[in-house]
Amino acid sequence: MNTQPLGLIGSQKWIGVVTLLLVSAVPMTSSGDEGMWLFNATPTKQLQAIHGFEPSQPWLDHLMLSSVRFNSGGSASFVSSQGLVLTNHHVASDTLYKLSTAEHNYNENGFLAASTADEIKTPDLELNQLISIEDVTERVNASIKESMTVQEAAKARQAKMASIEKESLDATGLRSDVVTLYGGGRYHLYRYKKYTDVRLVWAPEAGAAFFGGDADNFEYPRFCLDVTLFRVYENGKPAVIEHFLKMDPKGARDQDLVFVSGNPGRTRRIFTHDAIEYQRDVAMPRTMNLLRRKEILMQQYALAGPEQQRRSRDDLFGIQNSRKAYTGMLAGLQDPSFTASKKQQETELLSRLSQDRKLAPLTKAWEQIRASLEKRRELLTQGATLRSRLYGIAETLTLMASEDRKSNGDRLREFRDSNRESLLQELLSEAPIYEDLERLQLADELARLIDDRGANDPLVIAALAGKSPKQRAAEIIAGTKLTAVSERKRISEGGTQAISESKDPLILLAKSFESEYRRVHEATDSLEEQERQAYAKVTEAKFAVGGDSVYPDATFTLRLAFGKVLGYETEGKKIPAQTTLGGAFSHESLHLEKDPWVLPESWHTAKSKMNADTPFNFVCTADIIGGNSGSPVVSRDGAMVGIIFDGNIESLTADFYYTDNVSRAVAVHIAGVLESLRSIYNAPHLADEMGR
Amino acid sequence: MNTQPLGLIGSQKWIGVVTLLLVSAVPMTSSGDEGMWLFNATPTKQLQAIHGFEPSQPWLDHLMLSSVRFNSGGSASFVSSQGLVLTNHHVASDTLYKLSTAEHNYNENGFLAASTADEIKTPDLELNQLISIEDVTERVNASIKESMTVQEAAKARQAKMASIEKESLDATGLRSDVVTLYGGGRYHLYRYKKYTDVRLVWAPEAGAAFFGGDADNFEYPRFCLDVTLFRVYENGKPAVIEHFLKMDPKGARDQDLVFVSGNPGRTRRIFTHDAIEYQRDVAMPRTMNLLRRKEILMQQYALAGPEQQRRSRDDLFGIQNSRKAYTGMLAGLQDPSFTASKKQQETELLSRLSQDRKLAPLTKAWEQIRASLEKRRELLTQGATLRSRLYGIAETLTLMASEDRKSNGDRLREFRDSNRESLLQELLSEAPIYEDLERLQLADELARLIDDRGANDPLVIAALAGKSPKQRAAEIIAGTKLTAVSERKRISEGGTQAISESKDPLILLAKSFESEYRRVHEATDSLEEQERQAYAKVTEAKFAVGGDSVYPDATFTLRLAFGKVLGYETEGKKIPAQTTLGGAFSHESLHLEKDPWVLPESWHTAKSKMNADTPFNFVCTADIIGGNSGSPVVSRDGAMVGIIFDGNIESLTADFYYTDNVSRAVAVHIAGVLESLRSIYNAPHLADEMGR
Repeated sequence: MNTQPLGLIGSQKWIGVVTLLLVSAVPMTSSGDEGMWLFNATPTKQLQAIHGFEPSQPWLDHLMLSSVRFNSGGSASFVSSQGLVLTNHHVASDTLYKLSTAEHNYNENGFLAASTADEIKTPDLELNQLISIEDVTERVNASIKESMTVQEAAKARQAKMASIEKESLDATGLRSDVVTLYGGGRYHLYRYKKYTDVRLVWAPEAGAAFFGGDADNFEYPRFCLDVTLFRVYENGKPAVIEHFLKMDPKGARDQDLVFVSGNPGRTRRIFTHDAIEYQRDVAMPRTMNLLRRKEILMQQYALAGPEQQRRSRDDLFGIQNSRKAYTGMLAGLQDPSFTASKKQQETELLSRLSQDRKLAPLTKAWEQIRASLEKRRELLTQGATLRSRLYGIAETLTLMASEDRKSNGDRLREFRDSNRESLLQELLSEAPIYEDLERLQLADELARLIDDRGANDPLVIAALAGKSPKQRAAEIIAGTKLTAVSERKRISEGGTQAISESKDPLILLAKSFESEYRRVHEATDSLEEQERQAYAKVTEAKFAVGGDSVYPDATFTLRLAFGKVLGYETEGKKIPAQTTLGGAFSHESLHLEKDPWVLPESWHTAKSKMNADTPFNFVCTADIIGGNSGSPVVSRDGAMVGIIFDGNIESLTADFYYTDNVSRAVAVHIAGVLESLRSIYNAPHLADEMGR
Repeated sequence: MNTQPLGLIGSQKWIGVVTLLLVSAVPMTSSGDEGMWLFNATPTKQLQAIHGFEPSQPWLDHLMLSSVRFNSGGSASFVSSQGLVLTNHHVASDTLYKLSTAEHNYNENGFLAASTADEIKTPDLELNQLISIEDVTERVNASIKESMTVQEAAKARQAKMASIEKESLDATGLRSDVVTLYGGGRYHLYRYKKYTDVRLVWAPEAGAAFFGGDADNFEYPRFCLDVTLFRVYENGKPAVIEHFLKMDPKGARDQDLVFVSGNPGRTRRIFTHDAIEYQRDVAMPRTMNLLRRKEILMQQYALAGPEQQRRSRDDLFGIQNSRKAYTGMLAGLQDPSFTASKKQQETELLSRLSQDRKLAPLTKAWEQIRASLEKRRELLTQGATLRSRLYGIAETLTLMASEDRKSNGDRLREFRDSNRESLLQELLSEAPIYEDLERLQLADELARLIDDRGANDPLVIAALAGKSPKQRAAEIIAGTKLTAVSERKRISEGGTQAISESKDPLILLAKSFESEYRRVHEATDSLEEQERQAYAKVTEAKFAVGGDSVYPDATFTLRLAFGKVLGYETEGKKIPAQTTLGGAFSHESLHLEKDPWVLPESWHTAKSKMNADTPFNFVCTADIIGGNSGSPVVSRDGAMVGIIFDGNIESLTADFYYTDNVSRAVAVHIAGVLESLRSIYNAPHLADEMGR
């Protein structure tokens, strides 16, 4: 859908690695284990210098091709030649939720397919395997003329990107995305093989996967079996996979060098001091208010009973996870020592630029960004969209009809040809839609629109049609037919005629928002272009000063991180790097076996059978963030030793800066996964298949 | 304390009675059972016309003198000659919380004094019995000269009110408050007898008092024993009370005429359409964000364990209660049919005024209010205070030292002589202060200050002293000695010298805020004076048009409301007026006996003994709102038939308008109180004492 900002926030687990003090004089130049590196620009010198290891090209290629991206927001890896894919339970939970009903709650109670025939087809997953990366910076930038306004430049750049993607798709049949790196400093073409027949193989109970719940989230030590197995199919059969990870059954050991290959969602380390202040004082407080609003809304809905609890659980988890992550992030930005250090680095950089006649013009970038932030502030409350699944569908259908009459390059980016298959898969998903929840969310979004724009705003007056948000939402949801996939299909195929003839109240609502939506979209596109041009200069400046040890901010594309398995000290306590399966039971007792510290029955039944000393969770210094959830952790030998699922509370400012002082990435140990499959879940065949 | 806006919100249960349509052409002119009437201006004609009943002066005097105000925010009544006071458990919960420790949780587990010797003295309750009301409008207004600026007028009026109060206090020894009525249209002097030796006699378990928790709050049908008994003492002995309520053991019956005598906290029915819009689009969304922020903060704190749950429970209840109430209120304001009707009434009134040469100048009031709202908008984020118990103490001490050097009339209103005893009682309360909670709240308040003012604001920079909000709060709370009552006493007695010599980090913080606090305070005072002058004109207009059937907005002073015991229909279902004790068990089963629908053990033990058909809760059409919690409900005979504890969800917009369509006041039936004392709580002696 076009508009699921909260969904996006929700579906990515914000994990990463942080700092209390920034020491490197030039930001974005990595130090120690810092960095989310491009697979086509790996930090070989740094790895050699710090860890005495140099990955070979085949080693890198194998890891890249074994890595999997969940397009819904997460990472994973191939772990067998027969298409087994290992990811986090919380990456899978969106799908588990869609597969569940009041009778079968796979999210809560887990699932195990007795045989491949029993593996359940998922409604709308798209898994991506990165095949190649190509630098297309010159081609993209060639489309921009000096004389263009930012509006013109934004359109020209977008058209160029769409045509490069279309050309690549036509030539290779692969999903082709031009990715903006370094905030606009580089453009790379990423080609992916897509898997869309994805089936559920095994999931543990939520009580094991998310043991300790919201309370333990982002904490360490941890005891979570946050894993789920899927299998990709081709032509109705398990896909034959050439590149998959071998298992290291001993898994990660203290002090080991490990690598993380995954898709960090977003970092903003390139941000100027002004941009950081804007986040701190304007954007993030607003996001926090929105998250708290939605958290309370879903909590209240869940109070009504067990079925409501089930229906809201996935959303609520996503919201709580984001709220906790943003709380940590904002706390980091509100620490004057961070902003002071950022300011100092920037002052030093600017002074070095000014002293160099060739580089001095780059300093203009900082003013451009400042100007853009001023305009962003004005746009902040002007969004003309509503966060609701059904409204998102209506909006997509409405926009798509007009967009499709334009040439590929002129369309809004989400409607370009190369994205059409992915868009339709989501639009026509059979995932259940709950009318009571839609009613609640639409009513809340209409109320939120009043908060943002005031009740006298013409858009608001039109949207409410003289009714209260609650009455209006009830009327719209009762009247819409978009819950039926067949109706969505009909309209999506009927184009502008179907839209103009539609009397569906949600389509009518989306139509009444359309011109304002486009105005704000276009204004935002222009600001983004202005910032891309500015950050391209900032990047140039950093390359000039920092050499090639500069990695780009995260963009939900495949990156390589590395670090050591390493404990840490906090508030005077030594936190060991690893926990054990047996520790989970002690943790349960410590919390009096009260919710959310209740291990599933399966665990208590299996307690005497399992090896309690098996490593369960561990921490390492690798530089990761939300989107990295489900990333494989591999050894020097390229064998799997664990799977990332979280970052500790100290790591929550990784969006803006990294250190390896006390902040850590948190992973499930592969030995814990294998032992629990064998001893708890009666699935030795899956443990045996992994790595083969 | 000076600054507990959230506490104030929290301690008043927002209950009231509402509408879907406004029919009366002139707002504030009552229709049907509408109105929170002054005891010195009761609606005798209306009562006679609708209910064929005219209360006699002795009837009114007896009810007034039997009514009790909890100065902490609630209502109550004398129910025995030996000083027994009946109020709500949720009015008492603040005190139960203060009396509780990790070992004795009276809030959760209830309390019963074996004998009067075992009744527990409460740390800081002040109970008020209204003795007399005197109109002092002319005296107050005489202090204002035409030539004065609003700043001068605000000061002159305040000085006059302080001197009237002081004079009355000196003459009578009674607590004397000049109350602003009709938003500034009238000034009445209220004299109260104070009771400050208040002891806990009996409280049920929170599970019985707040059965159904946040989920059932503001819902109906209900099953809550939301009552608690205190006893007032004088000279170390149970006070001898002349005016107390008799019990009607049969209690309220369907269709009965009933009266409610209590202290509604605040309504804003006089507000102009502009003022309503300001609330809807500006002030309330901000309050909602604050409430959600604090709710999540306290929820997260409570996750840490049972003791944290206990420490946070009272705050959390207050916040959740307010959040739910404000949600309903805002939903009412966001209904275009309400604002349209309000606008239409106003247009009609203004047109009638314009047609009358004598009344026409009154229309200026609307412009004055509009101008004031513009300035209010600017002040909104400029508050220079922090919502924390300890900070409130530091602020009070700091301000008091300077204020006490001024003459009584020139001081900030909370520091006037006539309020000193009450202020000191709160300031020097032995109620426990939990450092972990204070640390958390202070850190959150410092972070909130950044949200409001931006991190570059000089006040913020000074407050943080280069540290993060969390670090700074930890340092301040570790360093302050204000947790000790003796230290507060020492400083409060040491005046400006003690303040200027103090190195206490909280005092230093409050001092660094002082000038900004005073600037905002003074600006607010001026706006309030401007609005008082304007609303005095609005009132004059309404009296001119609506005659004497005009009641003033609620001001947390004693009011008389009336109505019928009456069921209602909602979403096609008929809701009977009453529930029964036995119904509580069915309600528990219906919710699978899951938290918060778990009746205490005492109830299950007594189940076979009690009369299951005893009426338990009931609804009536009386016009009430937050602050009315604990108000006695009496019959035509002046006998007690119930006690108000809530309003239904449909009643939540009573702040702004009333109807008797589906909105209801919710009360505990007196028969349910008496039966539970006898059959569940082994306290027949208390049931016997009530009414004697």
